[in-house]
Amino acid sequence: MIPRYSRPEMVAVWDAQTRFRIWFEIEAYACDALAEIGVIPKEAAAAIWKKAGGAKFDVARIDEIEKVTKHDVIAFLTHLGEFIGPESRFVHQGMTSSDVLDTCLSVQLKRAADILIADVDALLAALRRRAFEHKFTPTIGRSHGIHAEPMTFGLKLAQAYAEFLRAKERLIHARKEIATCAISGAVGTFANIDPRVEIYVAEKLGLAVEPASTQIIPRDRHAMFFATLAVVASSLERLAIEIRHLQRTEVLEVEEFFSEGQKGSSAMPHKRNPVLTENVTGLSRLIRGMALPAMENVALWHERDISHSSVERMIGPDATITLDFALARMTGVIDRLLIYPANMQKNLDRLGGLIHSQRVLLALTQKGISREESYAYVQRNAMPVWRGEGDFLTLLKADPDVSKALSDAELEQLFDLGYHLKNVDVIFARVFGEG
Amino acid sequence: MIPRYSRPEMVAVWDAQTRFRIWFEIEAYACDALAEIGVIPKEAAAAIWKKAGGAKFDVARIDEIEKVTKHDVIAFLTHLGEFIGPESRFVHQGMTSSDVLDTCLSVQLKRAADILIADVDALLAALRRRAFEHKFTPTIGRSHGIHAEPMTFGLKLAQAYAEFLRAKERLIHARKEIATCAISGAVGTFANIDPRVEIYVAEKLGLAVEPASTQIIPRDRHAMFFATLAVVASSLERLAIEIRHLQRTEVLEVEEFFSEGQKGSSAMPHKRNPVLTENVTGLSRLIRGMALPAMENVALWHERDISHSSVERMIGPDATITLDFALARMTGVIDRLLIYPANMQKNLDRLGGLIHSQRVLLALTQKGISREESYAYVQRNAMPVWRGEGDFLTLLKADPDVSKALSDAELEQLFDLGYHLKNVDVIFARVFGEG
Amino acid sequence: MIPRYSRPEMVAVWDAQTRFRIWFEIEAYACDALAEIGVIPKEAAAAIWKKAGGAKFDVARIDEIEKVTKHDVIAFLTHLGEFIGPESRFVHQGMTSSDVLDTCLSVQLKRAADILIADVDALLAALRRRAFEHKFTPTIGRSHGIHAEPMTFGLKLAQAYAEFLRAKERLIHARKEIATCAISGAVGTFANIDPRVEIYVAEKLGLAVEPASTQIIPRDRHAMFFATLAVVASSLERLAIEIRHLQRTEVLEVEEFFSEGQKGSSAMPHKRNPVLTENVTGLSRLIRGMALPAMENVALWHERDISHSSVERMIGPDATITLDFALARMTGVIDRLLIYPANMQKNLDRLGGLIHSQRVLLALTQKGISREESYAYVQRNAMPVWRGEGDFLTLLKADPDVSKALSDAELEQLFDLGYHLKNVDVIFARVFGEG
Amino acid sequence: MIPRYSRPEMVAVWDAQTRFRIWFEIEAYACDALAEIGVIPKEAAAAIWKKAGGAKFDVARIDEIEKVTKHDVIAFLTHLGEFIGPESRFVHQGMTSSDVLDTCLSVQLKRAADILIADVDALLAALRRRAFEHKFTPTIGRSHGIHAEPMTFGLKLAQAYAEFLRAKERLIHARKEIATCAISGAVGTFANIDPRVEIYVAEKLGLAVEPASTQIIPRDRHAMFFATLAVVASSLERLAIEIRHLQRTEVLEVEEFFSEGQKGSSAMPHKRNPVLTENVTGLSRLIRGMALPAMENVALWHERDISHSSVERMIGPDATITLDFALARMTGVIDRLLIYPANMQKNLDRLGGLIHSQRVLLALTQKGISREESYAYVQRNAMPVWRGEGDFLTLLKADPDVSKALSDAELEQLFDLGYHLKNVDVIFARVFGEG
Repeated sequence: MIPRYSRPEMVAVWDAQTRFRIWFEIEAYACDALAEIGVIPKEAAAAIWKKAGGAKFDVARIDEIEKVTKHDVIAFLTHLGEFIGPESRFVHQGMTSSDVLDTCLSVQLKRAADILIADVDALLAALRRRAFEHKFTPTIGRSHGIHAEPMTFGLKLAQAYAEFLRAKERLIHARKEIATCAISGAVGTFANIDPRVEIYVAEKLGLAVEPASTQIIPRDRHAMFFATLAVVASSLERLAIEIRHLQRTEVLEVEEFFSEGQKGSSAMPHKRNPVLTENVTGLSRLIRGMALPAMENVALWHERDISHSSVERMIGPDATITLDFALARMTGVIDRLLIYPANMQKNLDRLGGLIHSQRVLLALTQKGISREESYAYVQRNAMPVWRGEGDFLTLLKADPDVSKALSDAELEQLFDLGYHLKNVDVIFARVFGEG
Repeated sequence: MIPRYSRPEMVAVWDAQTRFRIWFEIEAYACDALAEIGVIPKEAAAAIWKKAGGAKFDVARIDEIEKVTKHDVIAFLTHLGEFIGPESRFVHQGMTSSDVLDTCLSVQLKRAADILIADVDALLAALRRRAFEHKFTPTIGRSHGIHAEPMTFGLKLAQAYAEFLRAKERLIHARKEIATCAISGAVGTFANIDPRVEIYVAEKLGLAVEPASTQIIPRDRHAMFFATLAVVASSLERLAIEIRHLQRTEVLEVEEFFSEGQKGSSAMPHKRNPVLTENVTGLSRLIRGMALPAMENVALWHERDISHSSVERMIGPDATITLDFALARMTGVIDRLLIYPANMQKNLDRLGGLIHSQRVLLALTQKGISREESYAYVQRNAMPVWRGEGDFLTLLKADPDVSKALSDAELEQLFDLGYHLKNVDVIFARVFGEG
Repeated sequence: MIPRYSRPEMVAVWDAQTRFRIWFEIEAYACDALAEIGVIPKEAAAAIWKKAGGAKFDVARIDEIEKVTKHDVIAFLTHLGEFIGPESRFVHQGMTSSDVLDTCLSVQLKRAADILIADVDALLAALRRRAFEHKFTPTIGRSHGIHAEPMTFGLKLAQAYAEFLRAKERLIHARKEIATCAISGAVGTFANIDPRVEIYVAEKLGLAVEPASTQIIPRDRHAMFFATLAVVASSLERLAIEIRHLQRTEVLEVEEFFSEGQKGSSAMPHKRNPVLTENVTGLSRLIRGMALPAMENVALWHERDISHSSVERMIGPDATITLDFALARMTGVIDRLLIYPANMQKNLDRLGGLIHSQRVLLALTQKGISREESYAYVQRNAMPVWRGEGDFLTLLKADPDVSKALSDAELEQLFDLGYHLKNVDVIFARVFGEG
Repeated sequence: MIPRYSRPEMVAVWDAQTRFRIWFEIEAYACDALAEIGVIPKEAAAAIWKKAGGAKFDVARIDEIEKVTKHDVIAFLTHLGEFIGPESRFVHQGMTSSDVLDTCLSVQLKRAADILIADVDALLAALRRRAFEHKFTPTIGRSHGIHAEPMTFGLKLAQAYAEFLRAKERLIHARKEIATCAISGAVGTFANIDPRVEIYVAEKLGLAVEPASTQIIPRDRHAMFFATLAVVASSLERLAIEIRHLQRTEVLEVEEFFSEGQKGSSAMPHKRNPVLTENVTGLSRLIRGMALPAMENVALWHERDISHSSVERMIGPDATITLDFALARMTGVIDRLLIYPANMQKNLDRLGGLIHSQRVLLALTQKGISREESYAYVQRNAMPVWRGEGDFLTLLKADPDVSKALSDAELEQLFDLGYHLKNVDVIFARVFGEG
């Protein structure tokens, strides 16, 4: 976790206080359930809430105990006993550490997912606003980095909107994947604890019951969670790279907002660099790399080993904190993006009309010329334009084969920009559910 | 694609004939739609089906044409024209290559997903059958590779069943992710083709309409698809490793079926090795590695570049063929797995009763002894047993602190195996929806 | 392995004939050594070479035998016996399959490395030739995609040359990593075979002796090999992306060679796309993804398990064939790259002189103005130019703070392009060892 | 960076004070060089060392400045100016931020490599000591987790020793890869700074000169560095998994040292779990995952973008700190490993002599029986033993085909354990350079 790339709300999900509070709630709810079914006295369960329900656990003290016991849950329970006194012997009865650790991790990942989903909502709102703002701002569409045909800048953002709608759906699935509770004992048999305890605690914490745990919640769930984060990060990278491309000096169709006092370069004062989206690009790589250890965690030995623990101590916070930061940063970029329609028009005009080549090709075939011949006619007039030798429309008019098929007026009509924008409404309706 | 690790049904999804047939269908359905809305003559659309609907396309011929044109779709269209004649000029009107390529890939990945889902169903059936067969076969549960508490072999398989139920759900989601159709032209604007064509073709092919394509179907969909395969592979690896562990010489609780004529080792004739599950372990690594390039494919430049193509030519077939093979292999392993309950019992007895230590601990605390003291009593009697110096029950009976709290009869009752199996029914009901 | 992305020489390294020939040589050389030390008759060793030394092994026949034995080496030995007759009982004495398989893989990977090193040499030659050709062709250097300061196109290629010199060194190391021989028996103890056999075979095959094998050659060697390929692929990706950037419509400083008859787009006849470098980009992703399973292969169980085998059957050929193809493709791209100095100059002029801002900054500080003030002077004149409002030199001359420090003549001198090229010779001397 | 998995010496390499000190040295040495060649006054260079050479930079103050400038190097230079006063205008002349940042990263990674190499040396020493201690301790070698043939525990450790000798070599190479210095200006042309400055600073910092930088040091170097760490981590994982296997209840040939006061399980007091090696397994996964973003960092755009920065801020510390910790932890494990020769012997005896099957096979072929027949004789006697039905030697003696070829005395000799250990000296001499 790098403070520079962290936001407090997500950091708080992972701090020690939060973790110990969740551990406490799991233990205390379990005691409630145990009292309910008559395993421990109701007064004991009540006393636990009363004596420790408002406690601020002493993280340093717990660390100190752990140095002796080399076991974090035992250290916590020892510290908890210092608040509760004799009733502490009723705590953790029939449970195993993983019941606490894994259910706590579920709560934390679920909270993290909630924040990430809210982040995506904010990004969606920004994308939508800017998409409608530039619904009909013409810009060149590019394939292979080469000018293809006109589109609008709003369409670019609508496409991103649709992609992040999918990201949101995926995060909702991912949240469901990891929102389960296991309180099933040393090898998941409920030998020492009644299954009703698990059901009770799950409900209190807003989790589903894990149908079959093996001391631990199976790690295919977590693998799916982190793999999903990696895919969402890849979508962020795509949007970041789009903006970086559009900000290059030769293109300059958009720019990240540049605040007063900001210095682009210590050496070159004129520079305005897309540093935020470059940063998002790098953060995406990091999140992607974290999906791998999560997948390697699935094949734990038998009913569990502990090799997943160090992995999750790192990627649990790091992947969620980094993705939260990257999403929020991207929302800021989109919200304040400087958009230059005049430059877009300039770029549209750059190729001397070549971007209309497909329409000409199509018109020729519609006049009954074979596809192969049409292609040849178009290409032989396109190549000089490409080399900067002439204007496409002029050359076409002068080509005897072309002019035999298409009149000058017909040709001119084929160079109309509006032709390309006629279905923008259709696409917007699909993406946003409205025009 | 390695023939050794391939099955014909999945291989067929990816062969050239299948691909060209799907390309043909996309083009022919598009012509139907174009005819319907009056863009091309209805007779032309009908002629296309009539002249080429039953055609066996000549793969070598298409390759030859491609060598000149350096463009696979143009090569195909040229060859198609050889069947259709003059009406071929109505084919592909207003479309771009990616309309064909991407929609075809969707069809192929969807078919692949169907096969994979059927594979998981077969594995689930095998797991279920063997789980019920060994629902009450006692075996030791292990954490950290160390004996923990008793469970049943059926529970192990029930856990795997639950995991592959999740795998199935994930594959269903993954199929939905990639089952979309795009026929939207060079930059996704429908400039040269009516959006109704896309809707028509999508419906005919059983696909959803891609709400906003950019010449191509966005690659976050494919990334999610391959990431899901990687997670499913990781679950396979887990089951494979479980079996490999249980087959080790010192454990020998199960064995892969060993056919007559099979040689385990060229040098050591006595060997019976878990080679199938080791193979599945390796195949899982391969599939996992393929998720990465799929994720890196997301950030294509602008409305598309072609860098994803080589990646998908390889991982499209390789990931699906390999996972299909690995799933089927694992189903065979489970179906015919040799299971040795007697050896399970022998292993259960190995630790001189130590596996009941938690019950003793719990019983002590229930007698009012603090958790810390109880733990100390149990541990000091457990350690000699661990060193092979005595039997746990005998030592406990002889410990004055323990015997003050628990009578011999009470202690003996704590060593009852049945105690651990009392909730097997509950777990089976959760997992299989029945007892 | 995709035929489209394969070259015959590397494919041949991996075909079945090659493999069986290497297997034969390992067995036959081992017999020579066994005969030398008196374990088997010298006539037997001689007979093996005589009867099978020129044999063309029947791959289909071996596959057929393997279907029964389920063991590839036994199948081969059985087939070999059909050539050799009774002396075949002397073959493979005291050896284990992995002695053959692993040593064969070493030979194959070593040959593959040789081809890759030659590929890099060819790429280096192309880079060098083009670098000297454009040693002094001015072009703009860019950071963040934004114009920074002038450099030369030759410098770009020199940088790539230096990077691929490193790639070559890495491949030489990687070759050394895997070029070892193990003939040490079932668990590496030489129980049934004299260590002198290993030494003899290693020398004959041009391999080093594996100091401590465990039936198999340890897989950290192979992990390092494939990780190195992944790093080399990443360098290829970098060069590919550089070219793709420079070919974009708005930049157009270079273009991949475009042959007669080639069609850039089925729909847009004017397009000339950087498809070769886009392809190399995708191939690099594939190779990178293969490093992971190679690393996961390291932790085989005890003296070996067989999980690495399926991984290596796939990535052994795939990674080397793909990298060979990608390197050769890139060499072709560099060799025939169309380079447009006039467009480079046009781009250099695009920013109205802003690219000289650092020199002005430096000159101001050298006149005794503080760095902070100098930065402010430069920035306030740069911003209007950035917005297209004026020429940088003119504005600077009109700025009273600037003109107090620097005369018009001094300012003009700061805009001299030659200033930036004065150390090109130094860098070329470092990289190429000459001017 | 997780404090739990960190050691102070490596953490110190990455703390802000260290970084700012290195930045200072780069700037101050550069001033020395500039003074030497007459670009700035010698007194200025001397004053910089005098006024700030002993400075403790105020990290919080620098952070505060950075909040305004949004540029870390400018923030540092501003703070440095507070120490130095007017001479600060001579600092950083003609340099660009990356000159400082990248050269600093080289120094940090080089120091990190030094620590890692020392870590491996410590691990090697532990492996060597324990290897010689158990040079002739017989143990069973296993392939596929199945008993194969006898070897010694010392050989296992010797193999690990050989593997970590390779790890050391790789780290030495990796250190060389990243130990370069670049002070070459905005696009690497030395336009504003004399190349002699770079040479001078490189020498002072113990670095090589980067032959061709592009504002930055090329990232293929860093990719190779982190990929190497990933391979070393994979070797650690292998050793960790070996120990975990040997500690399983049914095998119990070794155990991690278990300190007084340690609690293996909160619920099961008898447990002694291999938690340290499980932890190392997880840490290895983390390090492996970090190689990927490092490789994706290679293809920065043109002369640089800043997307690598966030990646390196995280993996620079995380990968080196984690590997340092894992290596040290493993050294502790090996140093204090509890080794149980009696259990090894018990396991050796477990298979009723089957582990000698290969010797019998070999002896039969040496008596002139064909390999296929010999294999069949051995296998038909091995299978009952495998099923627990009898002793291998007894059965062989009773087999008429076998006893026709081998006398009872000959058969008994084939069951001699010493036979397998006769080449231990040879292997130790290869690995350790002595007997």
